[in-house]
Amino acid sequence: MKSSRLEAFSDGVIAIIITIMVLELKEPTGTALADLKPLLPIFLSYVLSFLYVGIYWNNHHHMLHSTKHVTGGILWANLHLLFWLSLFPFATAWVDENHLAAIPTAVYGFVLLMAAMAYYILQCSIIRLQGPDSVLAAAVGKDWKGKVSPVLYLVAIPLAFVIPLISNGLFVLVALLWLIPDRRIERVLAKHETE
Amino acid sequence: MKSSRLEAFSDGVIAIIITIMVLELKEPTGTALADLKPLLPIFLSYVLSFLYVGIYWNNHHHMLHSTKHVTGGILWANLHLLFWLSLFPFATAWVDENHLAAIPTAVYGFVLLMAAMAYYILQCSIIRLQGPDSVLAAAVGKDWKGKVSPVLYLVAIPLAFVIPLISNGLFVLVALLWLIPDRRIERVLAKHETE
Amino acid sequence: MKSSRLEAFSDGVIAIIITIMVLELKEPTGTALADLKPLLPIFLSYVLSFLYVGIYWNNHHHMLHSTKHVTGGILWANLHLLFWLSLFPFATAWVDENHLAAIPTAVYGFVLLMAAMAYYILQCSIIRLQGPDSVLAAAVGKDWKGKVSPVLYLVAIPLAFVIPLISNGLFVLVALLWLIPDRRIERVLAKHETE
Amino acid sequence: MKSSRLEAFSDGVIAIIITIMVLELKEPTGTALADLKPLLPIFLSYVLSFLYVGIYWNNHHHMLHSTKHVTGGILWANLHLLFWLSLFPFATAWVDENHLAAIPTAVYGFVLLMAAMAYYILQCSIIRLQGPDSVLAAAVGKDWKGKVSPVLYLVAIPLAFVIPLISNGLFVLVALLWLIPDRRIERVLAKHETE
Repeated sequence: MKSSRLEAFSDGVIAIIITIMVLELKEPTGTALADLKPLLPIFLSYVLSFLYVGIYWNNHHHMLHSTKHVTGGILWANLHLLFWLSLFPFATAWVDENHLAAIPTAVYGFVLLMAAMAYYILQCSIIRLQGPDSVLAAAVGKDWKGKVSPVLYLVAIPLAFVIPLISNGLFVLVALLWLIPDRRIERVLAKHETE
Repeated sequence: MKSSRLEAFSDGVIAIIITIMVLELKEPTGTALADLKPLLPIFLSYVLSFLYVGIYWNNHHHMLHSTKHVTGGILWANLHLLFWLSLFPFATAWVDENHLAAIPTAVYGFVLLMAAMAYYILQCSIIRLQGPDSVLAAAVGKDWKGKVSPVLYLVAIPLAFVIPLISNGLFVLVALLWLIPDRRIERVLAKHETE
Repeated sequence: MKSSRLEAFSDGVIAIIITIMVLELKEPTGTALADLKPLLPIFLSYVLSFLYVGIYWNNHHHMLHSTKHVTGGILWANLHLLFWLSLFPFATAWVDENHLAAIPTAVYGFVLLMAAMAYYILQCSIIRLQGPDSVLAAAVGKDWKGKVSPVLYLVAIPLAFVIPLISNGLFVLVALLWLIPDRRIERVLAKHETE
Repeated sequence: MKSSRLEAFSDGVIAIIITIMVLELKEPTGTALADLKPLLPIFLSYVLSFLYVGIYWNNHHHMLHSTKHVTGGILWANLHLLFWLSLFPFATAWVDENHLAAIPTAVYGFVLLMAAMAYYILQCSIIRLQGPDSVLAAAVGKDWKGKVSPVLYLVAIPLAFVIPLISNGLFVLVALLWLIPDRRIERVLAKHETE
């Protein structure tokens, strides 16, 4: 089986998820600038979720690039990832309509955590297929972001019941971690490893 | 005609169907954990329909992989399958807003049955095109799942008027049948056939 | 410019159009079989519009198959076609919520007519690009369906103000014309031409 | 990294954006021709936004055609463009429900401006990757439209607070600028440059 159709299908689902979230941004009833103000938290959490889905698409693109063939197990691991990504619009909508309330924030963190787990499972099933000379395994060896992110989600979920603002701050932090261009950090890490 | 564009179009439609269903999962008005409770049946039937659409995509992927060219008849058989798949969000929404009532359950079963029939018709038209040396026909020979599934749907539809819970259980059972990795079962069947 | 990306984009838009129409089919509030009855006209016009979009996709697939390169003019002729196709869900929804009323039926016919015109313009711009040895021009020479369809729409639009039912019957007739497998008719036509 | 998957993903998102906008065009409650009248401004702004998204898709198609490989920076510049395009349905809906009111018109102009900036950033990152012999840089040298458009948006935004109609007229003008086939104008410009 070729990986190209898996990519095409994933692209379709991710494209729809990213666009469905914008439907939450309903046009205000008034026409004053002040009417846009209540939309600000919705807009900001749209930006955050857009970033997350963008990061997933970006990493998914890289990961599948390393493999040309896929097995039935990979197909299902990929659908599992898409399932959790498909819950992003729901979780985003719940958070932004309730101004960062405790439970919605925790649920948002839970969906982020499950998507990260699903991504990890997909990564493992591709590495298993590639065997000992896995290109992906070599690339993932340095993947400190992939290890730090779920830990931060795990911290953010219980914290949502105490100070939801900090939990949401952690979600933003993880997104920024992935956005910062890798090269400089990787060079530092590379140096560290050669020392 | 190449089969690649047929795949791309089907991927697009299936990707949208799978994502439209999540729109049923509307964010609760409250922010307590208890507010998520009424969403549980909607969530579960979303999971079930996601699995079904995923299984169809998966099998569709395998089936079209065996053919490089398509005829006008195959194009229409494929559109016919997409038509019934496009009714999944409707049938799912009706079942989950009515806590497994009789008629919605029967309608859900009917849509599943029609999709299975449409899949079978598509399969037959590809086998007819491939002729006596059909790769697909050889693969389908062992396809006991494809034969058992419509029988279970046919049992589930009248049963919905008596005990809808069992009908819904049968729908879950069929989905699980398709999810269990084939290899072990196929080896057992292979042994059985060689004896 | 390659035609592959034009196909991919058109597939995406057509896939979304075909799926958006199903959103009109809202789950009934009750759970009796009788609750499905008011959905019947909506279901039937969904089937009709699904057929129309399917026919356009099918023909679009064939037409673009005959060309490998596209010009800026073809890109815009294609977008023009997609524009009118994108109005199908609106026109369909208006007809089926008003039980075949005069104006909605006429508007539906108008959208069908404009889509047919847009298709014709796209066809002409591809033939112009291919020059005198155009493969498409040769194939289109026999295209009596493409000539009869707009005439029937033009008849159906004024008729909608008198007997809308007949107009809607004409829309069904045109769809069936395109659905009937071509081969037998084409053979007849082929004979007729060789005589 | 190949640019094909970037194209496929962008196509998906743009296809959904273009189709989501049509959802604003809700079927009227009555069935008289007069019932269509209040839909006219919504229809006209749908046409305008469809044109804009079509122009972006068209240019995006040309721009990515000039490059075969993409970097992480290009992936993010592309997602940034898609982000602003994804706000078109929101901005369009706000303008057309308020009959060209001041603030909605200014916000529409702002979203157009940001999309133009995002397009410019994407263009720069592709040119940087291609280096001094950049095909894209050569093509862009003559790109007076790309330079005039943001200036017109910048004029239209403050003007929206005075005479919103003129601002909206400027948006239509920019769209028409891009629609007029380039060849004749480019020849004139080419002559002008050689003189």
